[in-house]
Amino acid sequence: MALIVQKYGGSSVADAASVQRVAARIVATKQAGHDVCVVVSAMGDTTDELLDLAQQVTADPPSREMDILLTAGERISMSLLAMAIDGLGVEARSFTGQQAGVITDAAYGQARIIDVSPSRITATLADGQVAIVAGFQGVNTEANDVTTLGRGGSDTTAVALAAALGADVCEIYSDVDGVFTADPRIVPSARRLGQIGYDVMLEMAASGAKVLMPRCVEYARRFGVPVHVRSSFSDLDGTLVTKEDPMEEPIIAGVAHDRSQAKITLVDVPDVPGKAARIFKVVADAGVNVDMIVQNVSASGTGRTDVSFTLPAADGDAATAALAAVRAEIGYARLAYDDTIGKLSLVGAGMKSNPGVSARLFHALSDAGINIEMISTSEIRLSVVTGAGDLDAAVRAVHTAFDLDSDQDEAVVYGGTGR
Amino acid sequence: MALIVQKYGGSSVADAASVQRVAARIVATKQAGHDVCVVVSAMGDTTDELLDLAQQVTADPPSREMDILLTAGERISMSLLAMAIDGLGVEARSFTGQQAGVITDAAYGQARIIDVSPSRITATLADGQVAIVAGFQGVNTEANDVTTLGRGGSDTTAVALAAALGADVCEIYSDVDGVFTADPRIVPSARRLGQIGYDVMLEMAASGAKVLMPRCVEYARRFGVPVHVRSSFSDLDGTLVTKEDPMEEPIIAGVAHDRSQAKITLVDVPDVPGKAARIFKVVADAGVNVDMIVQNVSASGTGRTDVSFTLPAADGDAATAALAAVRAEIGYARLAYDDTIGKLSLVGAGMKSNPGVSARLFHALSDAGINIEMISTSEIRLSVVTGAGDLDAAVRAVHTAFDLDSDQDEAVVYGGTGR
Repeated sequence: MALIVQKYGGSSVADAASVQRVAARIVATKQAGHDVCVVVSAMGDTTDELLDLAQQVTADPPSREMDILLTAGERISMSLLAMAIDGLGVEARSFTGQQAGVITDAAYGQARIIDVSPSRITATLADGQVAIVAGFQGVNTEANDVTTLGRGGSDTTAVALAAALGADVCEIYSDVDGVFTADPRIVPSARRLGQIGYDVMLEMAASGAKVLMPRCVEYARRFGVPVHVRSSFSDLDGTLVTKEDPMEEPIIAGVAHDRSQAKITLVDVPDVPGKAARIFKVVADAGVNVDMIVQNVSASGTGRTDVSFTLPAADGDAATAALAAVRAEIGYARLAYDDTIGKLSLVGAGMKSNPGVSARLFHALSDAGINIEMISTSEIRLSVVTGAGDLDAAVRAVHTAFDLDSDQDEAVVYGGTGR
Repeated sequence: MALIVQKYGGSSVADAASVQRVAARIVATKQAGHDVCVVVSAMGDTTDELLDLAQQVTADPPSREMDILLTAGERISMSLLAMAIDGLGVEARSFTGQQAGVITDAAYGQARIIDVSPSRITATLADGQVAIVAGFQGVNTEANDVTTLGRGGSDTTAVALAAALGADVCEIYSDVDGVFTADPRIVPSARRLGQIGYDVMLEMAASGAKVLMPRCVEYARRFGVPVHVRSSFSDLDGTLVTKEDPMEEPIIAGVAHDRSQAKITLVDVPDVPGKAARIFKVVADAGVNVDMIVQNVSASGTGRTDVSFTLPAADGDAATAALAAVRAEIGYARLAYDDTIGKLSLVGAGMKSNPGVSARLFHALSDAGINIEMISTSEIRLSVVTGAGDLDAAVRAVHTAFDLDSDQDEAVVYGGTGR
């Protein structure tokens, strides 16, 4: 008998029939002898509909009220799910984030969990009942106000509860079968990974793999919570995200991609010390997270250089406005903005210690006729920026070049082969 | 400057445009210099949609979960309303029943308010902000679980908050202009009452006038809260429900009607002491509230009599089942059930002291060719049961017979005329 936390996303509880299907799965887990705590997101499009309502009412809704509005979505899904489980003859109780003891800071819309005190959940499980908890929300106990956790909040709720309850595993259910070597919509031959380490998963998530959000993986790594990423539409095993196992870890885990970035280039920046620091101070003060940075050497002898960096396209306006305001001070000639870029990242724990990875990647892209605009590397990741229109072809070319396609011999890409 | 509690029903906040319209009305009240606390119901059909979702998921949803589900409706309307007010440049904060300090017992679905501790509302008003409170809901502090107050719950929330805050008036907004001498949909010439006493309003409400629920009027009477019943679609004065003023009180306030009742007749009940007590004990034990009771004398000398009573048609199955189970014990011959009845009630504070009222009523119905099935009276009310098909004609005939039509001289029906 284990203590299992299960999290179901909005696509798994999109309508009454889906709620019943998920309820049956929960009941099966319970009847197999396990204690079950379930974290649930809002049904299907509920959150978007509520956002739309808010926009109809006012252009700039206060964030405190926005959080109250959005948390109505989980209130609906969690009570319906408890009802459906009850209808199958198993007792279930639903709890808001507040009732489940999810304590956050006061940053409405993007609150951080600062403590979890799940005494009501523990008591509910001890009574033999299934506990259903609203994802994505908590309470700021200082103001006694409801907060939402922002993107990926429900996954984080599930992992945080699993850590606080000492659960054996946190199962994250969605409409995908697990973590793949690439997005199967782009690479039909992509393979599901059976197991992946926290660090590699974190790089995959940060590089655009949408199956888990980085903050959720960070939380799981910090507390050592094993996370099982599965589909709620099948009974297949998914991907287990857990501590690194050197014997099991593939050299190359997969190819992630990200279409949400944009690139800013400042042309003819005076090549004197302190300019780069000043530029990125201005951008950071505008609340923008910079990703990749490239500064060309001023080979021409003009004493001027170009500085390029990538950022979330959603922050493009904020960054360009902030930089335009200091153009004279920084002394750049021109700002170029490009949001038709794509980022490809090759991720794997053995990458750094395996020379030839970058050469193989550049060769594959070159063979496919794809131009590389920027490059950056980390211990376990190698990222390149391409034109947006080239991204899908680039992902396919790299996936094939690293023998990740499913018709290849699996042993080739898993650890211990010395490649 | 006054402290005003305003309550807006679901029809007043049916969509984003309605929410904005209500927000403008609240802002106008605030800018006139008043402190404003607003109680709001769920938008339009939200509650029905949630009930429908629950029914799709399971046939018999647990009441605790049902209350969690239904309270999502006010969460949406209250936050949207706060946003809309904020969009008009006035600060507003929304609060759940729990946050507003509405403490109830644990009777899910029909909880009773046992205390109101509105410290957050008081603080919000002191800060110059508008406080928006979710109607229809509270918290059972023993279990720390959300509860709903049942039918008329939002009106009751408003009156209870007005009492706890010491408000000058509680304004109840809906889609009608006030309390009328009869339902204007049946009697187009019905007149709006400018003022009405708590007791008479209570009889009107209990007799089927839908503008206020009896529990709300009881609460207002107990705490002496003046209630102003108004339309959110006009700026007209409505009806002030307040302490009786003998000089202002009309002899006849109006004609209420009720289509929701049914009639049960037990035929040939042994006419011996204790039978009636036994019958109504059985019915009460089934959780059914009996309204009118008629027992004919056993004039035929058979030692048997018929016992008839009315009850909510929704309780018809429960009552007939309970009585069928004791048929042998009670010894009645047959049970007749009729849900095609209507109840007409003439209500007014001066009725008892004005002989001739009942004769005039019976005469009016007789002239209209309408048969009376049952009669009951109280200090300030005279009710008759007719066939359902005769009810509208009965209401019109009585309304005219008591000179209530708006083309009549108003002085005729108001106090002090000695009729």
